[in-house]
Amino acid sequence: MSRVGTRMIYFGGDYNPEQWPADVVEEDVALMRRAGVNIATVGVFSWSDLEPEPGRYEFGWLDRVLGRLHDAGIGVALATPTASPPPWFTLAHPGAMPVTADGVRLTHGSRDTYCVSAPAYRAAARNIVAELAERYAHHPALTMWHVHNEYGTDCRCDVTAAAFRSWLEKKHGDLDVLNEVWTTSFWSQRYSDWAQIMPPRATQYLPNPAHVLDFRRFLSDELLGGFIEQRDLLRAANPDVPITTNFVQGGWVSVDHARWAGEVDIVAVDHYPAATGAGADAETAFGGDLARGWGRGSWLLMETAPNLIYTPGRMHAKEPGQLTRNSLDYVARGSRGAMYFQWRQPRGGAELFHSALVPHAGPDSPVFREAVGLGRTLKALAPRLPEEPPAARVAVAWDAPSWWALQGGGLPSAEIDYLTAVQQAHRVLHRSGLAVDFVFPGMDDLRERLTAYDMVVLPHLFLVSDEAAAALRDFVASGGHLVVDHLSGIADPAGRIRLGGYPGAFRDVLGLRVVEWRPLAGGTPIALDNGDRGIRWSERVETAGAETLVRYAGDVLAGAPAITRNRHGAGTAWYVSPGLDDDALGRILDRVAAEAGVTPVLPGLPPHLTAVRRGDLLFLFNHGDVPGTVALPGSDPVTVQPGGFQCVESGRV
Amino acid sequence: MSRVGTRMIYFGGDYNPEQWPADVVEEDVALMRRAGVNIATVGVFSWSDLEPEPGRYEFGWLDRVLGRLHDAGIGVALATPTASPPPWFTLAHPGAMPVTADGVRLTHGSRDTYCVSAPAYRAAARNIVAELAERYAHHPALTMWHVHNEYGTDCRCDVTAAAFRSWLEKKHGDLDVLNEVWTTSFWSQRYSDWAQIMPPRATQYLPNPAHVLDFRRFLSDELLGGFIEQRDLLRAANPDVPITTNFVQGGWVSVDHARWAGEVDIVAVDHYPAATGAGADAETAFGGDLARGWGRGSWLLMETAPNLIYTPGRMHAKEPGQLTRNSLDYVARGSRGAMYFQWRQPRGGAELFHSALVPHAGPDSPVFREAVGLGRTLKALAPRLPEEPPAARVAVAWDAPSWWALQGGGLPSAEIDYLTAVQQAHRVLHRSGLAVDFVFPGMDDLRERLTAYDMVVLPHLFLVSDEAAAALRDFVASGGHLVVDHLSGIADPAGRIRLGGYPGAFRDVLGLRVVEWRPLAGGTPIALDNGDRGIRWSERVETAGAETLVRYAGDVLAGAPAITRNRHGAGTAWYVSPGLDDDALGRILDRVAAEAGVTPVLPGLPPHLTAVRRGDLLFLFNHGDVPGTVALPGSDPVTVQPGGFQCVESGRV
Amino acid sequence: MSRVGTRMIYFGGDYNPEQWPADVVEEDVALMRRAGVNIATVGVFSWSDLEPEPGRYEFGWLDRVLGRLHDAGIGVALATPTASPPPWFTLAHPGAMPVTADGVRLTHGSRDTYCVSAPAYRAAARNIVAELAERYAHHPALTMWHVHNEYGTDCRCDVTAAAFRSWLEKKHGDLDVLNEVWTTSFWSQRYSDWAQIMPPRATQYLPNPAHVLDFRRFLSDELLGGFIEQRDLLRAANPDVPITTNFVQGGWVSVDHARWAGEVDIVAVDHYPAATGAGADAETAFGGDLARGWGRGSWLLMETAPNLIYTPGRMHAKEPGQLTRNSLDYVARGSRGAMYFQWRQPRGGAELFHSALVPHAGPDSPVFREAVGLGRTLKALAPRLPEEPPAARVAVAWDAPSWWALQGGGLPSAEIDYLTAVQQAHRVLHRSGLAVDFVFPGMDDLRERLTAYDMVVLPHLFLVSDEAAAALRDFVASGGHLVVDHLSGIADPAGRIRLGGYPGAFRDVLGLRVVEWRPLAGGTPIALDNGDRGIRWSERVETAGAETLVRYAGDVLAGAPAITRNRHGAGTAWYVSPGLDDDALGRILDRVAAEAGVTPVLPGLPPHLTAVRRGDLLFLFNHGDVPGTVALPGSDPVTVQPGGFQCVESGRV
Repeated sequence: MSRVGTRMIYFGGDYNPEQWPADVVEEDVALMRRAGVNIATVGVFSWSDLEPEPGRYEFGWLDRVLGRLHDAGIGVALATPTASPPPWFTLAHPGAMPVTADGVRLTHGSRDTYCVSAPAYRAAARNIVAELAERYAHHPALTMWHVHNEYGTDCRCDVTAAAFRSWLEKKHGDLDVLNEVWTTSFWSQRYSDWAQIMPPRATQYLPNPAHVLDFRRFLSDELLGGFIEQRDLLRAANPDVPITTNFVQGGWVSVDHARWAGEVDIVAVDHYPAATGAGADAETAFGGDLARGWGRGSWLLMETAPNLIYTPGRMHAKEPGQLTRNSLDYVARGSRGAMYFQWRQPRGGAELFHSALVPHAGPDSPVFREAVGLGRTLKALAPRLPEEPPAARVAVAWDAPSWWALQGGGLPSAEIDYLTAVQQAHRVLHRSGLAVDFVFPGMDDLRERLTAYDMVVLPHLFLVSDEAAAALRDFVASGGHLVVDHLSGIADPAGRIRLGGYPGAFRDVLGLRVVEWRPLAGGTPIALDNGDRGIRWSERVETAGAETLVRYAGDVLAGAPAITRNRHGAGTAWYVSPGLDDDALGRILDRVAAEAGVTPVLPGLPPHLTAVRRGDLLFLFNHGDVPGTVALPGSDPVTVQPGGFQCVESGRV
Repeated sequence: MSRVGTRMIYFGGDYNPEQWPADVVEEDVALMRRAGVNIATVGVFSWSDLEPEPGRYEFGWLDRVLGRLHDAGIGVALATPTASPPPWFTLAHPGAMPVTADGVRLTHGSRDTYCVSAPAYRAAARNIVAELAERYAHHPALTMWHVHNEYGTDCRCDVTAAAFRSWLEKKHGDLDVLNEVWTTSFWSQRYSDWAQIMPPRATQYLPNPAHVLDFRRFLSDELLGGFIEQRDLLRAANPDVPITTNFVQGGWVSVDHARWAGEVDIVAVDHYPAATGAGADAETAFGGDLARGWGRGSWLLMETAPNLIYTPGRMHAKEPGQLTRNSLDYVARGSRGAMYFQWRQPRGGAELFHSALVPHAGPDSPVFREAVGLGRTLKALAPRLPEEPPAARVAVAWDAPSWWALQGGGLPSAEIDYLTAVQQAHRVLHRSGLAVDFVFPGMDDLRERLTAYDMVVLPHLFLVSDEAAAALRDFVASGGHLVVDHLSGIADPAGRIRLGGYPGAFRDVLGLRVVEWRPLAGGTPIALDNGDRGIRWSERVETAGAETLVRYAGDVLAGAPAITRNRHGAGTAWYVSPGLDDDALGRILDRVAAEAGVTPVLPGLPPHLTAVRRGDLLFLFNHGDVPGTVALPGSDPVTVQPGGFQCVESGRV
Repeated sequence: MSRVGTRMIYFGGDYNPEQWPADVVEEDVALMRRAGVNIATVGVFSWSDLEPEPGRYEFGWLDRVLGRLHDAGIGVALATPTASPPPWFTLAHPGAMPVTADGVRLTHGSRDTYCVSAPAYRAAARNIVAELAERYAHHPALTMWHVHNEYGTDCRCDVTAAAFRSWLEKKHGDLDVLNEVWTTSFWSQRYSDWAQIMPPRATQYLPNPAHVLDFRRFLSDELLGGFIEQRDLLRAANPDVPITTNFVQGGWVSVDHARWAGEVDIVAVDHYPAATGAGADAETAFGGDLARGWGRGSWLLMETAPNLIYTPGRMHAKEPGQLTRNSLDYVARGSRGAMYFQWRQPRGGAELFHSALVPHAGPDSPVFREAVGLGRTLKALAPRLPEEPPAARVAVAWDAPSWWALQGGGLPSAEIDYLTAVQQAHRVLHRSGLAVDFVFPGMDDLRERLTAYDMVVLPHLFLVSDEAAAALRDFVASGGHLVVDHLSGIADPAGRIRLGGYPGAFRDVLGLRVVEWRPLAGGTPIALDNGDRGIRWSERVETAGAETLVRYAGDVLAGAPAITRNRHGAGTAWYVSPGLDDDALGRILDRVAAEAGVTPVLPGLPPHLTAVRRGDLLFLFNHGDVPGTVALPGSDPVTVQPGGFQCVESGRV
């Protein structure tokens, strides 16, 4: 990213001056300077203000804003506004509005209301992007291009259907292949012509899961096509300006970010944790570590909430200091900056209660005062911040298609939740003080990436290709420690079960086969012979070489293996059959880590403290309500106040 | 209302002879006489029986029914049947069927299935109304016209869209104004042509709340236009017959009854309380007091259930005596009568389990026997009943648009519930024995109405105009006591936040500003330093002149103001920041009442008794299961039996 | 059923070789032989493999499969594949796709996606059936025809509307009759032309329940027409092959199986119990007994799950031995076999986690091993199994239209659940060790069937015709014991309430009238004077000749009758007014049984054992986890192991 100085930490956020009168804009620039803001994301959702009628442009206001920001020394992440076409677009191109699975054609009135496959939409988008590129590609305020916003729109219209069919033809080549890998003989779904294939639409009963899975892959690729089209236009206008788009990270995922990461100049992530109190630090760490995985060490926090956190049922206001601590945590985990949605809280519109650095109450408010302090902190930190990202010897696997596959109906248990499983694995390792990376078994570079780790955990890696399975086996053979859970390695990438006993992809390396699943009723655990309890899941495991470490102790499974270890080449493969709570899983993963020789960032840390190391700089965060003191080798002990942090130069422990 | 004798209490209800053979009608008239019924609402939903084919009328049966009722001395509230067009209407005018936000065009088969904006519907409605007017406007049985039924139909079709645009043009005048007050720069929603504006329809994500709010206002006005059209036709036929329509009061409100109240000759209300046991009396009181507010002292209970109460999960049968007690309570609170849905329980149709004065079991049943006694009681009471309504010195504010605004998505807490907040304020005052009125801050006569009160409570008055805010400030300046809660005074009538600190409309009169909302998780209260607990809501308050009476005592807010009092001119403005339970809120409101010099109807009343005074007549109700004895000044103590009532002449206390 | 040997017990299940390569098919045949499988259901959902393009057939694979199975001595239940038209059908006949009440036209991609009223669908179905009939009607492997699959598709399109109107004209003859029995005067629904009648479609509010009820009856008849059309084609091709279709029995019912039973050569039932642990035996018994009622003694278990049971929230794996025990239980209750969905668990498709006799793990698995043992057991049992079905002296009534009527909205209690009520009555009798049959009050042979019983229970028989009511009264008059509960006998077959006091159909025989329903809130029971408690329901009963056995003891009903007995002719009619738990209901029904002289199959059986008798063969099942010993007259005691069973020759007790 050419213009992103490595000695600078981005601090700023989404800014929508088009919603405000001129005097407020003047106040904004003054307040940004007071807070030390050095970047503003401008133009997201501004299409109807930039092109109020087809072909009539109003760039004057944007000229003035960019000029004013530049004069104040503030860079601009200039957005293309294509995530929300103006109302005139609907009337001009009704066929470019998205259609739901039920056949309802949506209408403007919100955001994201377009069909990415519609030629008219693509043309209008190219047009406004070209206009922006022409006008601003060499603007001195331009720090980076921010394409679109949170790609993720779904459409099931006939135009989408045609695009889906083209994608399928390209992927499967032959209709017989598609019929085979989709198992279309089930329920008389065999296609005799490509034209018969539709997006998943309202139908009588359960859909074909392979059909749904390929449609989600298609949608991710189709949206990526939309991004690339814009990126290439912008790059052509000025190859020196870095280009990104903001990935959404959360409980909902409509694109495969691991695939997208290769197409952006820097991975930018919107992260809105929902946890409050205890647990919030783990969610922040998860977000930062996963983003760093996508970005191969470097990424940018593009949006997070300055204050109110969306939780089920209500918004939760952050505690004093939490904005600062969470922001530093992202930076410690590799973010090039700390950016927020949003700068100023709007008076109206659908998100008028979303928090902002300048809230409804104005600058005379706790959140703005904390922002001013945070700006100072980041500015002071920038020169000290090493280039290198945090280093980890343990990795957790992440795979968007496995998530999609486990979102279908008809699963063996309604408690199956991919995100929960991955977050738990990460959280348990994080609680043990380990630095954690992510690997992506769906990507071609898996084998290469695995070389960096001593220990890899595969939570619910439901889909796995032959190549990825081989790479993971070889990782073990070469001395690695692999941990597999009960829903990992079950199916091929099309979602077809690997037969002969679960988990088909890893039976050999694990030295066992699972002959029967026995999902547990909610609230009815199963005893294990080590005193722990299995929750949500049990199954009948038959070992074939593996050593049994823990056995089921109740129900019809009494005496059967529950947790096993298998030597394979120079390494070890572990199998965790039951669902476990954090403590029980922690005991297992700690044991694996010990055998793998993986040690915490800072051994002996009190539980309410976390530590992140970048090179010689050690970040210490206190997530509790009492002070925490840390003994550092060769220096005085460091005390971190409740809710606070410390950055300490420290040799590697 | 010309024909409504003030010495008569209406007693009767909805009557549908078209569902029954002739011998049942004969029995009905005899039973009505036995019960002392003096009014029957006839013709609601009778369109398909009156006009079975377009232009072919069958009035014979209605002639006979009106004649038979008149002969028996029973008056008729004759309904126009326009709430449910006949099946032939759908086939003749498919475009006049309503369309949902998803684009589904509804079909006949229930009731209320029409688009009020559709010219064909309006023409058909005018036609049948004109026929009825011509035939019955001078019929001797005609006591009043009952137009339509429970107005409240929603439609999103293209015809509605055009009507909505006309309404918007008339309201906002200029498209730039609309763009400004709707904040359409948010999410690229700026309109460049009126033609781009649609009713809220299925869209990708959250709608614009200002758009939704104006649509709800439009719908209320559009339906009112439908009413006025009928009213004027009927009035032209005979200006001496009073005209009304039945307002629905409940958990659902689609029109702004405060605005409608000025267009009817008497406010008629359908009230279906859902509370059983303790709490039922408060809900009845709330309904009666609110209706009296709409009707400026006089109103008519047009429908309530004789027996079964709809509660979540099941119908609850009233206790013996409850029908009588509740009915008298409405009368005590200003109702000109006690009318029920319905006279005779139907054999079939969608509401065949709705209760009736004559149930499926027939007249040999508890409910009919109680009805006979109630008829006698009302007849005896009529000559004693003073003209004047109950008088109150305290008022609660009611504002339908604030309710609508707080029904949108994206609110800071899912526990925000306008109706609950208003009902709680009323209930707490009612439990303290105070007579309570309602005022309507959205109406032009607010300033005039406020002169009647010493104390005014504004629960969740989210939207408030500059004019209303000024009137309320002046109310305080002139000596009044104003109580404001945490969601009151937040926004202007378009729903735009009043900036600079909440509550923008009342910061000055309250002497404080709120700089941050901190909604509470369900079940996680916050301590207050008076021993009470805040629930659902907390926030950071900074006083600017106000005196702090109670402080938050827990969480990050410890020590911050929670309940304050501010002298403003000759009066006092109180602010209640946290949500409170009834007891805690009661202690605050009792204190305000005491300072305002407002006293109960009858001090020292046992908690299971309530008292309502109309002039010299005192109504005493016992809602408990033990007798209650009341000492009255200058007369013997009065004992009210469990579940019973007493009407006592008594000088003002 | 000509080819069904009475000395043979069918053992096998659904088999889909079209989903597998040739080597798997070879393995399947070998495994079937190992397990003793003697029948395979082939061709369900195979349409797209049989006719991959319109008019182009691929029968080669089916020829090979049938040949291979026949060579191995395995019979074939050959299905017509019409439950799931191929994708090409949608494109060729878009108008034959089903339409929801909201107007959404469904698309292929699942199963069951067709409109049974559509001429194009019917033609395509007849065509493929004719092809199959021509090719296979005399195939030596053909054991029976299995038409379609689980009939139950719903459609609301215009073609369906026309068919519905024809059905209505035929049923009601005159539009005035329809208007009368549908109570269309309610809410202005009176029809003046048949053309105005639509299927129930999206409308504004509650539909007319009589309209919905007739539509459900129509749909059952319309689907039956589809079946008969196929049946007659197949029968014409070879009158000697029995023809059936699999009835779905479960929490959802879209056709009236009692009516269908007369049109099949043998009643075949799909039964998927959802109960786990205690209660599972009662659900199996219920399914078997009800199926036997439809089949007049003989029926065939066509599908059940070999292992995983669908329960709310997760699949539950059966305990070891449960497959065997449940299967034998069905056979004991009259099933001609034990068949499963499915033989081999699929790799893909929507039901890839459905259990199978050959699971994903392959034959080296607990379920396949148990299947092998079960095959041996059935083979050994076959020659010993008497022809005669179990004999019962007590019957429970079953009536699909009453279920439908109680599924509407606006009922007096959300806890009303027809299936729960019938299952409870059956379960309570079953727990008392009684053999139980079912009778069908909606069928013409009711009077004749009643002659077989001493005791009949009518749970929630909401709808009852005059004829059925007379037959039930005569049953009592002739000496029978009739038990009526609080929602039985309420309405006529159109759903119109029988007036004058509930239950209108049985007031006279019960000697009482109910004048008021008082549904109870969940969790708020009402005391009875015998120490039991009423749950869910109470009501005010006035006796008129009946003897009060138990009285309400709480609430406003204190002292009122709750359970009564009335002598009527030579018999007795019992009324159970409150809802009761199993124990309380059991005490009442035991008393009735005692007075009726009905005795258990095997008196004194321990509670975890059940006994079923067919002729001289006594089946004993142990559903508990400790052994159970049974003393048999004239022979040694028999001990049944936990989870096991015994078949004992034994003279009648």
